[in-house]
Amino acid sequence: MQFSSKLIEEAVNSFASLPGIGKKTALRLVLHLVQRPVEDSVGFAQAIARMRENILHCTTCGNLSDQHVCSICRDPRRDQSLICVVESIRDVMAIEDTRQYRGLYHVLGGVIAPIEGIGPADLNIDSLIGRARHPDTQEIIMAISPTIEGDTTIFYITRLLEDVDITVSNIARGVSFGGELEYADEVTLGRSIVARTRL
Amino acid sequence: MQFSSKLIEEAVNSFASLPGIGKKTALRLVLHLVQRPVEDSVGFAQAIARMRENILHCTTCGNLSDQHVCSICRDPRRDQSLICVVESIRDVMAIEDTRQYRGLYHVLGGVIAPIEGIGPADLNIDSLIGRARHPDTQEIIMAISPTIEGDTTIFYITRLLEDVDITVSNIARGVSFGGELEYADEVTLGRSIVARTRL
Repeated sequence: MQFSSKLIEEAVNSFASLPGIGKKTALRLVLHLVQRPVEDSVGFAQAIARMRENILHCTTCGNLSDQHVCSICRDPRRDQSLICVVESIRDVMAIEDTRQYRGLYHVLGGVIAPIEGIGPADLNIDSLIGRARHPDTQEIIMAISPTIEGDTTIFYITRLLEDVDITVSNIARGVSFGGELEYADEVTLGRSIVARTRL
Repeated sequence: MQFSSKLIEEAVNSFASLPGIGKKTALRLVLHLVQRPVEDSVGFAQAIARMRENILHCTTCGNLSDQHVCSICRDPRRDQSLICVVESIRDVMAIEDTRQYRGLYHVLGGVIAPIEGIGPADLNIDSLIGRARHPDTQEIIMAISPTIEGDTTIFYITRLLEDVDITVSNIARGVSFGGELEYADEVTLGRSIVARTRL
């Protein structure tokens, strides 16, 4: 790609450094920002810079936060007895979007994946055990991906929580709501028969 | 989408205001920038802001430029007798990428499209006529999309240039190089038979 402007070239390369954005898309975005009023496009850039400079990880749960303790952990209306363990911030948002859960979270920052060199020490596990021992905590809910790595992580954490007097639970696994049975994958369908629940 | 952080929410909304970027993609990009080192992500934002604050339109050809006159118009090695008329900056880049053209450009900023309310006065046409009258100019090459609007624009400009003593040419239209004849559209194939060239 031939650029007659260094400024455009740098902006295109910046966008193209983002995942899933190629040079052509980057150019389209840059030319769009050129069309928009200056204050508008500069405002776009400032929102990104402000976010990156000021964003924190909640010291309690590991969620992204504007303050040292995140808005969920600070909220007195949330059920302090429940802690939902998730892999990533994205999962917190997905669960919040369901509006079905009013407890707290704990973000691990991933799952145990020896092949990728991610061990228990790389995850936010120690602080979870600390929180589990808090007298307010009654239940730890594992909301981890149903994969081999996910199950390994659940098993590892459950073992560490054996001597703590709390309930440890797992989110339900089975066929998706609204999905046609014939399209469910074999493993899911097989396991949901084995793990059937009484009506 | 439920956000526990205002900073993240603003950054996601900023990205989602760009064309072709939805909320989910925006979130993915923001979480990516959170993972990257602060200087790196702030550098990204600064490149965008710097570009938008300082970018200019070349006073001669209308191309995007870091200076009042763009690097192509300033380049003494370019053939000053040729002016290639294009719709947009993107077309300048596409032609430059071919490395087949060493003349100058003139960016119209669009084509005449009455339905969308774009008339000749909205385009960079007056300055083109001025440049055509310059004694150095020998040929104006129309590199405009072969659409009804494009052809209207070419016709309009050609009429204005009737009393100027220069050559006005059109880029070749016909079947694409490397394409199979059977896949060429009917109009293109039909016209390329009518407009056949002698070998």
